[in-house]
Amino acid sequence: MKITLVGTGRVGSAIAFALTINPLANELLLLNRSREKAEGDALDLTHAAALVDSNMKIYAGDIADSNDSDVIIFTASVPFRYPNQTRLEMGIDNMPILRDWMPALAKASPNAIVIMVSNPVDALAYETIRLTGFDPKRVIGTGTLVDSIRYRALLSTELKIHAQDIRAYILGEHGDTQFAASSIAMTGGERFYPSDTSRRMFEETKAMGYEVFRLKGHTSYGIAMATITILDSIAYDLRHTMPVSVLVDGYLGVEDVCLSLPAVIGREGVTRILHPTLSEDEESAFRNSAAIVKQTLVEMEAGQ
Amino acid sequence: MKITLVGTGRVGSAIAFALTINPLANELLLLNRSREKAEGDALDLTHAAALVDSNMKIYAGDIADSNDSDVIIFTASVPFRYPNQTRLEMGIDNMPILRDWMPALAKASPNAIVIMVSNPVDALAYETIRLTGFDPKRVIGTGTLVDSIRYRALLSTELKIHAQDIRAYILGEHGDTQFAASSIAMTGGERFYPSDTSRRMFEETKAMGYEVFRLKGHTSYGIAMATITILDSIAYDLRHTMPVSVLVDGYLGVEDVCLSLPAVIGREGVTRILHPTLSEDEESAFRNSAAIVKQTLVEMEAGQ
Amino acid sequence: MKITLVGTGRVGSAIAFALTINPLANELLLLNRSREKAEGDALDLTHAAALVDSNMKIYAGDIADSNDSDVIIFTASVPFRYPNQTRLEMGIDNMPILRDWMPALAKASPNAIVIMVSNPVDALAYETIRLTGFDPKRVIGTGTLVDSIRYRALLSTELKIHAQDIRAYILGEHGDTQFAASSIAMTGGERFYPSDTSRRMFEETKAMGYEVFRLKGHTSYGIAMATITILDSIAYDLRHTMPVSVLVDGYLGVEDVCLSLPAVIGREGVTRILHPTLSEDEESAFRNSAAIVKQTLVEMEAGQ
Amino acid sequence: MKITLVGTGRVGSAIAFALTINPLANELLLLNRSREKAEGDALDLTHAAALVDSNMKIYAGDIADSNDSDVIIFTASVPFRYPNQTRLEMGIDNMPILRDWMPALAKASPNAIVIMVSNPVDALAYETIRLTGFDPKRVIGTGTLVDSIRYRALLSTELKIHAQDIRAYILGEHGDTQFAASSIAMTGGERFYPSDTSRRMFEETKAMGYEVFRLKGHTSYGIAMATITILDSIAYDLRHTMPVSVLVDGYLGVEDVCLSLPAVIGREGVTRILHPTLSEDEESAFRNSAAIVKQTLVEMEAGQ
Repeated sequence: MKITLVGTGRVGSAIAFALTINPLANELLLLNRSREKAEGDALDLTHAAALVDSNMKIYAGDIADSNDSDVIIFTASVPFRYPNQTRLEMGIDNMPILRDWMPALAKASPNAIVIMVSNPVDALAYETIRLTGFDPKRVIGTGTLVDSIRYRALLSTELKIHAQDIRAYILGEHGDTQFAASSIAMTGGERFYPSDTSRRMFEETKAMGYEVFRLKGHTSYGIAMATITILDSIAYDLRHTMPVSVLVDGYLGVEDVCLSLPAVIGREGVTRILHPTLSEDEESAFRNSAAIVKQTLVEMEAGQ
Repeated sequence: MKITLVGTGRVGSAIAFALTINPLANELLLLNRSREKAEGDALDLTHAAALVDSNMKIYAGDIADSNDSDVIIFTASVPFRYPNQTRLEMGIDNMPILRDWMPALAKASPNAIVIMVSNPVDALAYETIRLTGFDPKRVIGTGTLVDSIRYRALLSTELKIHAQDIRAYILGEHGDTQFAASSIAMTGGERFYPSDTSRRMFEETKAMGYEVFRLKGHTSYGIAMATITILDSIAYDLRHTMPVSVLVDGYLGVEDVCLSLPAVIGREGVTRILHPTLSEDEESAFRNSAAIVKQTLVEMEAGQ
Repeated sequence: MKITLVGTGRVGSAIAFALTINPLANELLLLNRSREKAEGDALDLTHAAALVDSNMKIYAGDIADSNDSDVIIFTASVPFRYPNQTRLEMGIDNMPILRDWMPALAKASPNAIVIMVSNPVDALAYETIRLTGFDPKRVIGTGTLVDSIRYRALLSTELKIHAQDIRAYILGEHGDTQFAASSIAMTGGERFYPSDTSRRMFEETKAMGYEVFRLKGHTSYGIAMATITILDSIAYDLRHTMPVSVLVDGYLGVEDVCLSLPAVIGREGVTRILHPTLSEDEESAFRNSAAIVKQTLVEMEAGQ
Repeated sequence: MKITLVGTGRVGSAIAFALTINPLANELLLLNRSREKAEGDALDLTHAAALVDSNMKIYAGDIADSNDSDVIIFTASVPFRYPNQTRLEMGIDNMPILRDWMPALAKASPNAIVIMVSNPVDALAYETIRLTGFDPKRVIGTGTLVDSIRYRALLSTELKIHAQDIRAYILGEHGDTQFAASSIAMTGGERFYPSDTSRRMFEETKAMGYEVFRLKGHTSYGIAMATITILDSIAYDLRHTMPVSVLVDGYLGVEDVCLSLPAVIGREGVTRILHPTLSEDEESAFRNSAAIVKQTLVEMEAGQ
């Protein structure tokens, strides 16, 4: 498998390091606005790889080198101007970056699967489908996977059950309108009944990205592992289910927008979007997410 | 961690090989009625281990060598006389073997966790608690974990979703009275509604052990990996949930019998027994399992 | 990658189990004289695989199902009649089995790499090249890799250094004329000077296969892991070096025979045969191995 | 195992991420001058860990939390002022940081093994032994392990052999006086004869750290994996051999200085220092390294 990773900032280079440790491909191309940074990372990672039982070629290059990639991971972004920047403002900054890169990348790799990591991820995933003309099942946003694992990490400490066995889902927008779909949560055979504790944990989860930003100036490792998890399921056609941003297929009457729903991920991308039976409140929250993300997209267009 | 593995027949030696490939301990002691067989396996596995990045000591020995084991895996058994042997008959044959080994093993390793693999597993797990006086949370039978993975493997092929994301549970007796707890099954965010297909698959699952016996004369790899999964969760205190045979703690009014329920497994053994909310039919099936296993135990006593 | 495994006896099924635990392919076809045994293993392994994070299809079939395999692992063999059977007698028994299977397998998978495991491995690897017309770099015998790891395991215990860092080589015939190439052995930066201890360990190594046979009635796990190591280096194009049986390329004037030399193994098979500088005694021993294996081949032809 | 990691800059946090992906411990404590940065990393890594099959506790704290650590990894350092800073200047800056942390750390964990990563590593490893009074076998500097893997990575690309099979060693100072010990290099059974190419590669290797700095502003991943490799061999008592900075034990008449030699690493730290037979030139180079590092230490003392 050939992977092209666009953007070698904090998130991109953490993804590249994770891939060096557990190689899922035999070729990893690093693209970056400053090519020197990409070359430095490629060299540094090649040294790390000498201690790993793999044979993945890691190198920096240009779009021309990305020909026939199987997966394109997009992490290019302006830095987040914490804490004053709105998601809309970030979208206005990042949309031109996406438009610079994506059409040429898609042309070079017409059969690639795109994993969108940059924010606002739902809007950028949607725009990627529009710009590339790719079958929507080949565009996956990291979406609320990162929120869900933060929520599961909190619940895991509370319940003393491994996070992987806490099937709790944050769905909808990767942003303020996201919601915890408690009616479908299970913990290893027991129904998960929301409590004051779990509600507090959901509030903490929503604030968590900002908290990590406040503490260390950026987020990187959680989102990097979320990306690796998606990639792993693609690389080995594992058919794992996970909440990721996909083009909604009419579920609850919603369409023409990317939002996070549990989906099956395999070698072809999104092999199936699951349709959980939600409570009425959760259904409303999902529709609200849809409305907000659509509106942001309109405002982003207007803002440029 | 020090592991003592009792019985190096087909199942025991498959477990030992899996442990050699993915070492979970630094010491693996093999005990067997015929010590020569255990010594041959230890030697053969030591050669395999030279190609693995580990440093686990693998050796054959006597009960005296098992002192201070952290985990005892019990696989000693008469061969299954397919297809004519009943579970009761097997119990009558295996109970004396258990009584030969277990008290001395428990004395040598008073803090060990026991993983019971031999059949009838529910009866032998119960008898192990009685013979050793161990805290019941330190005795775990492989129980319906192997049935559950067979069921999940069938569903996985049908649904094109990874077996790990199909949280479907076979509970109760590891035997004819087991049942599929469909009311708590989930597949990656979707409720799992039983269908004619899933009901057929459950029937196939129940017959699967016999089918593998018919085809190859024994079963080994599925049960070996089930054992490894339990052991892994103990070794790294992973707190994974899985259906295993435990001393039932009053759930649905049942007690004083070992049956499979979803449980959390960690460094201390069973750190929690989950109490799923079942349908009425499933509750009856569980109580029926309890009655049958208790009766078998009485008959086994009488049969000796 | 698609792997066809021929023979599901003790060695073949141990290889299949190791592959289930650490999948190197997305398809594993099991072929066996008794198809029922292969079907039983495929079913049992499919259950084990439900607990592994992979998606390898494991199934039994006929030669027709093997079309376009990337690797063919050949383990079919008569049982070893310990201790009275000579390698020549085993060759006379196994040659017809090879001739039954190999031409049809090669026709179905004209680009496959063959890993020969059955004995006498050097003779059968040579005959495989003859029968298939394959480029010799695509035929690899497990050869003295298994002897080398047995030797390294003994030295590792003595030196308290990991076996992987003890680069000691048994070369030549996988049989009585093999020799320890001490002049090229290194242990982590130090030259390895043969001693009485190391010479005794080499003698033990030569007798080790028989010892394991005596104790457990067969050998399986060491040879299975040796096979997996070769396969791993093929699957990920790792370019690891290891002593394996290859068609000798004129080294020391020897040709037209398969013997073990250190070789580089990658996605194309043997990507390079190394030409170590041996001592005079070692050179003689290598030429002697060549003579004996050639003679055995002649006698095998005559014996049928 | 409990690990305390001191310093969560680029190198420290890369080590923490690698440990999150492949956990070698059940507790990872992050200490940093700015505790907020350590807390941010701990939180971010805890989210990543929710996707990993482990149960390692990751948290930030103070020296008091480090009690009874099994391993202390020291990466605290002033930033490298590329390209004008000499190793001596860096030593003058970093020595006070070491003296701030190390005595209190050693007091809290009197049986710990220290892995020194900060530069100048040979001087700081030596000073660590002096400050802590630890048995020298429990103080290991990453030393020329990182240079050796850079050299092996270059040779691997040239020779098309996996870097792990290219047993080529850079020994002596982790600095300008280091040398390639070609007389003990082996590549999978073949002697390694130095050529113009390999000599050029050694020169490239020496300049590589600066080159990565020039391109990306820091080095992180190569040195992080080198640290993980040492730690892995400690955690599982693997007894792997690798060139690391150790207190020289009189080899070639050198003592009372830390320099890189091939050593065996296990649960007790340096279980053995290997004594390779070098050429005359290499012996001179090693003695020269010793003289330079001793002199730097004197000048560092004077410079403060």
